[in-house]
Amino acid sequence: MTELLQEKCVACRADSPRVTVEEIAELHPIVAEWELTEENSIPQLTRSFRFSNFAEALAFSSSVGEAAEAEGHHPRIVTEWGRVTISWWTHKIRGLHRNDFIMAAKTDQLYSA
Amino acid sequence: MTELLQEKCVACRADSPRVTVEEIAELHPIVAEWELTEENSIPQLTRSFRFSNFAEALAFSSSVGEAAEAEGHHPRIVTEWGRVTISWWTHKIRGLHRNDFIMAAKTDQLYSA
Repeated sequence: MTELLQEKCVACRADSPRVTVEEIAELHPIVAEWELTEENSIPQLTRSFRFSNFAEALAFSSSVGEAAEAEGHHPRIVTEWGRVTISWWTHKIRGLHRNDFIMAAKTDQLYSA
Repeated sequence: MTELLQEKCVACRADSPRVTVEEIAELHPIVAEWELTEENSIPQLTRSFRFSNFAEALAFSSSVGEAAEAEGHHPRIVTEWGRVTISWWTHKIRGLHRNDFIMAAKTDQLYSA
Protein backbone atom coordinates (compact mmCIF):
# COMPACT_ATOMS: atom_id res chain seq x y z
CA MET A 1 0.00 0.00 0.00
CA THR A 2 3.01 2.27 0.61
CA GLU A 3 3.43 3.08 -3.07
CA LEU A 4 -0.12 4.39 -3.44
CA LEU A 5 0.07 6.26 -0.14
CA GLN A 6 3.03 8.27 -1.36
CA GLU A 7 1.21 9.39 -4.49
CA LYS A 8 -0.87 12.53 -4.91
CA CYS A 9 -3.98 12.76 -7.04
CA VAL A 10 -3.37 14.29 -10.44
CA ALA A 11 -5.79 16.76 -12.02
CA CYS A 12 -8.35 14.86 -14.04
CA ARG A 13 -10.03 15.84 -17.30
CA ALA A 14 -12.77 14.21 -19.33
CA ASP A 15 -10.13 12.66 -21.59
CA SER A 16 -7.94 11.36 -18.78
CA PRO A 17 -7.35 7.63 -19.04
CA ARG A 18 -9.44 5.17 -17.06
CA VAL A 19 -7.47 2.41 -15.43
CA THR A 20 -7.07 -0.58 -17.73
CA VAL A 21 -7.98 -4.12 -16.79
CA GLU A 22 -4.26 -4.79 -16.29
CA GLU A 23 -3.90 -1.81 -13.96
CA ILE A 24 -6.94 -2.91 -11.96
CA ALA A 25 -5.37 -6.35 -11.60
CA GLU A 26 -2.24 -4.66 -10.25
CA LEU A 27 -3.92 -2.04 -8.03
CA HIS A 28 -6.92 -3.84 -6.56
CA PRO A 29 -4.89 -6.31 -4.44
CA ILE A 30 -3.22 -3.29 -2.77
CA VAL A 31 -6.64 -2.13 -1.53
CA ALA A 32 -8.17 -5.59 -1.39
CA GLU A 33 -10.89 -4.72 1.11
CA TRP A 34 -12.55 -2.43 -1.41
CA GLU A 35 -15.25 -3.90 -3.59
CA LEU A 36 -15.36 -3.14 -7.28
CA THR A 37 -19.00 -2.14 -7.64
CA GLU A 38 -21.02 -0.56 -10.43
CA GLU A 39 -23.74 2.08 -10.30
CA ASN A 40 -25.51 3.37 -13.40
CA SER A 41 -22.82 1.56 -15.43
CA ILE A 42 -20.08 3.51 -13.62
CA PRO A 43 -17.47 1.37 -11.86
CA GLN A 44 -16.66 2.41 -8.29
CA LEU A 45 -14.52 1.33 -5.37
CA THR A 46 -16.66 0.87 -2.27
CA ARG A 47 -15.89 -0.14 1.30
CA SER A 48 -17.88 -0.09 4.55
CA PHE A 49 -16.12 0.67 7.82
CA ARG A 50 -17.61 -0.33 11.20
CA PHE A 51 -17.66 1.79 14.36
CA SER A 52 -19.13 1.31 17.79
CA ASN A 53 -21.35 4.40 17.73
CA PHE A 54 -22.47 7.36 15.65
CA ALA A 55 -19.90 9.86 16.91
CA GLU A 56 -16.95 7.71 15.80
CA ALA A 57 -18.55 7.18 12.40
CA LEU A 58 -19.08 10.92 12.00
CA ALA A 59 -15.48 11.69 13.01
CA PHE A 60 -14.18 9.22 10.40
CA SER A 61 -16.42 10.76 7.73
CA SER A 62 -14.99 14.18 8.56
CA SER A 63 -11.41 12.96 8.35
CA VAL A 64 -12.03 11.29 4.98
CA GLY A 65 -13.76 14.46 3.79
CA GLU A 66 -10.80 16.59 4.84
CA ALA A 67 -8.37 14.26 3.05
CA ALA A 68 -10.59 14.50 -0.03
CA GLU A 69 -10.50 18.30 0.11
CA ALA A 70 -6.72 18.25 0.45
CA GLU A 71 -6.40 16.14 -2.72
CA GLY A 72 -9.20 17.86 -4.65
CA HIS A 73 -10.85 14.48 -5.29
CA HIS A 74 -14.18 13.76 -3.62
CA PRO A 75 -16.02 10.56 -2.68
CA ARG A 76 -19.55 9.77 -1.67
CA ILE A 77 -19.65 9.27 2.10
CA VAL A 78 -22.62 7.55 3.69
CA THR A 79 -22.64 8.09 7.46
CA GLU A 80 -24.92 5.96 9.66
CA TRP A 81 -24.94 4.77 13.27
CA GLY A 82 -21.86 2.52 13.52
CA ARG A 83 -21.05 2.46 9.83
CA VAL A 84 -19.49 4.61 7.13
CA THR A 85 -19.56 3.57 3.49
CA ILE A 86 -17.17 5.31 1.13
CA SER A 87 -17.33 5.16 -2.67
CA TRP A 88 -14.58 6.47 -4.90
CA TRP A 89 -14.87 7.04 -8.63
CA THR A 90 -13.95 9.81 -11.04
CA HIS A 91 -16.96 11.77 -12.20
CA LYS A 92 -15.24 13.36 -15.19
CA ILE A 93 -14.36 10.05 -16.81
CA ARG A 94 -17.40 8.16 -15.45
CA GLY A 95 -15.07 5.47 -14.24
CA LEU A 96 -12.02 4.56 -12.20
CA HIS A 97 -8.77 6.48 -12.37
CA ARG A 98 -5.54 5.72 -10.55
CA ASN A 99 -6.56 8.62 -8.23
CA ASP A 100 -9.38 6.45 -6.87
CA PHE A 101 -6.99 3.70 -5.82
CA ILE A 102 -4.71 6.30 -4.23
CA MET A 103 -7.65 7.67 -2.23
CA ALA A 104 -8.83 4.17 -1.25
CA ALA A 105 -5.36 3.51 0.19
CA LYS A 106 -5.38 6.84 2.04
CA THR A 107 -8.86 6.05 3.41
CA ASP A 108 -7.62 2.68 4.71
CA GLN A 109 -4.74 4.47 6.39
CA LEU A 110 -7.12 6.90 8.11
CA TYR A 111 -9.19 3.97 9.38
CA SER A 112 -6.19 2.17 10.82
CA ALA A 113 -4.73 5.37 12.30
CA MET B 1 -42.18 24.80 12.21
CA THR B 2 -41.69 26.56 15.55
CA GLU B 3 -43.66 23.95 17.46
CA LEU B 4 -41.47 21.07 16.26
CA LEU B 5 -38.29 23.08 16.78
CA GLN B 6 -39.09 23.55 20.44
CA GLU B 7 -39.55 19.82 21.03
CA LYS B 8 -36.87 17.36 22.09
CA CYS B 9 -36.70 13.77 20.91
CA VAL B 10 -38.14 11.29 23.38
CA ALA B 11 -36.47 7.96 24.10
CA CYS B 12 -37.82 5.36 21.71
CA ARG B 13 -38.49 1.68 22.32
CA ALA B 14 -39.61 -1.10 20.01
CA ASP B 15 -43.19 -0.62 21.21
CA SER B 16 -43.22 3.16 20.83
CA PRO B 17 -46.02 4.35 18.56
CA ARG B 18 -45.43 5.09 14.91
CA VAL B 19 -47.04 8.26 13.68
CA THR B 20 -50.57 7.65 12.43
CA VAL B 21 -51.84 8.69 9.02
CA GLU B 22 -53.60 11.60 10.72
CA GLU B 23 -50.39 12.72 12.44
CA ILE B 24 -48.49 12.52 9.16
CA ALA B 25 -51.18 14.70 7.56
CA GLU B 26 -50.62 17.22 10.35
CA LEU B 27 -46.81 17.07 10.54
CA HIS B 28 -45.69 16.68 6.92
CA PRO B 29 -46.84 20.17 5.81
CA ILE B 30 -44.60 21.62 8.54
CA VAL B 31 -41.56 20.03 6.88
CA ALA B 32 -43.01 20.06 3.38
CA GLU B 33 -39.68 19.90 1.57
CA TRP B 34 -39.05 16.40 2.92
CA GLU B 35 -40.18 13.48 0.79
CA LEU B 36 -41.96 10.57 2.33
CA THR B 37 -39.94 7.70 0.88
CA GLU B 38 -39.79 3.99 1.56
CA GLU B 39 -36.82 1.63 1.72
CA ASN B 40 -37.17 -2.07 2.44
CA SER B 41 -40.78 -1.35 3.42
CA ILE B 42 -39.61 1.20 6.02
CA PRO B 43 -41.03 4.70 5.59
CA GLN B 44 -38.49 7.52 5.83
CA LEU B 45 -38.28 11.29 5.54
CA THR B 46 -35.67 12.27 2.96
CA ARG B 47 -34.41 15.61 1.69
CA SER B 48 -31.45 16.66 -0.46
CA PHE B 49 -29.69 19.94 0.24
CA ARG B 50 -27.55 21.72 -2.39
CA PHE B 51 -24.19 23.39 -1.82
CA SER B 52 -21.69 25.07 -4.07
CA ASN B 53 -18.77 22.78 -3.24
CA PHE B 54 -17.69 19.76 -1.20
CA ALA B 55 -16.43 21.65 1.86
CA GLU B 56 -19.81 23.30 2.49
CA ALA B 57 -21.58 19.97 2.08
CA LEU B 58 -19.20 18.35 4.57
CA ALA B 59 -19.67 21.17 7.09
CA PHE B 60 -23.45 20.78 6.88
CA SER B 61 -23.16 17.01 7.36
CA SER B 62 -21.09 17.61 10.49
CA SER B 63 -23.58 20.07 11.92
CA VAL B 64 -26.51 17.69 11.30
CA GLY B 65 -24.46 14.88 12.85
CA GLU B 66 -23.76 16.98 15.93
CA ALA B 67 -27.45 17.84 16.29
CA ALA B 68 -28.24 14.14 15.99
CA GLU B 69 -25.77 13.28 18.73
CA ALA B 70 -27.26 15.96 20.96
CA GLU B 71 -30.74 14.44 20.56
CA GLY B 72 -29.63 10.81 20.62
CA HIS B 73 -31.45 10.19 17.32
CA HIS B 74 -29.39 9.46 14.22
CA PRO B 75 -30.02 9.80 10.49
CA ARG B 76 -28.32 8.49 7.40
CA ILE B 77 -26.23 11.27 5.88
CA VAL B 78 -25.01 10.99 2.30
CA THR B 79 -22.29 13.55 1.59
CA GLU B 80 -21.24 14.24 -2.01
CA TRP B 81 -19.74 17.15 -3.93
CA GLY B 82 -22.36 19.91 -3.69
CA ARG B 83 -25.10 17.77 -2.15
CA VAL B 84 -26.10 16.24 1.18
CA THR B 85 -29.04 13.85 1.42
CA ILE B 86 -30.47 13.22 4.87
CA SER B 87 -32.89 10.42 5.76
CA TRP B 88 -34.67 10.22 9.08
CA TRP B 89 -36.53 7.18 10.40
CA THR B 90 -36.69 5.30 13.67
CA HIS B 91 -34.83 2.00 13.55
CA LYS B 92 -36.45 0.53 16.64
CA ILE B 93 -39.98 0.81 15.26
CA ARG B 94 -38.99 0.35 11.60
CA GLY B 95 -40.98 3.43 10.76
CA LEU B 96 -41.61 7.09 11.43
CA HIS B 97 -41.94 8.55 14.91
CA ARG B 98 -42.70 12.13 15.86
CA ASN B 99 -38.95 12.37 16.63
CA ASP B 100 -38.22 12.12 12.90
CA PHE B 101 -40.38 15.14 12.12
CA ILE B 102 -38.74 17.05 14.97
CA MET B 103 -35.30 16.26 13.53
CA ALA B 104 -36.39 17.14 9.98
CA ALA B 105 -37.45 20.57 11.27
CA LYS B 106 -34.14 21.00 13.12
CA THR B 107 -32.24 19.98 9.96
CA ASP B 108 -34.13 22.61 7.93
CA GLN B 109 -33.21 25.18 10.54
CA LEU B 110 -29.51 24.25 10.30
CA TYR B 111 -29.66 24.64 6.50
CA SER B 112 -31.24 28.08 6.68
CA ALA B 113 -28.92 29.22 9.48
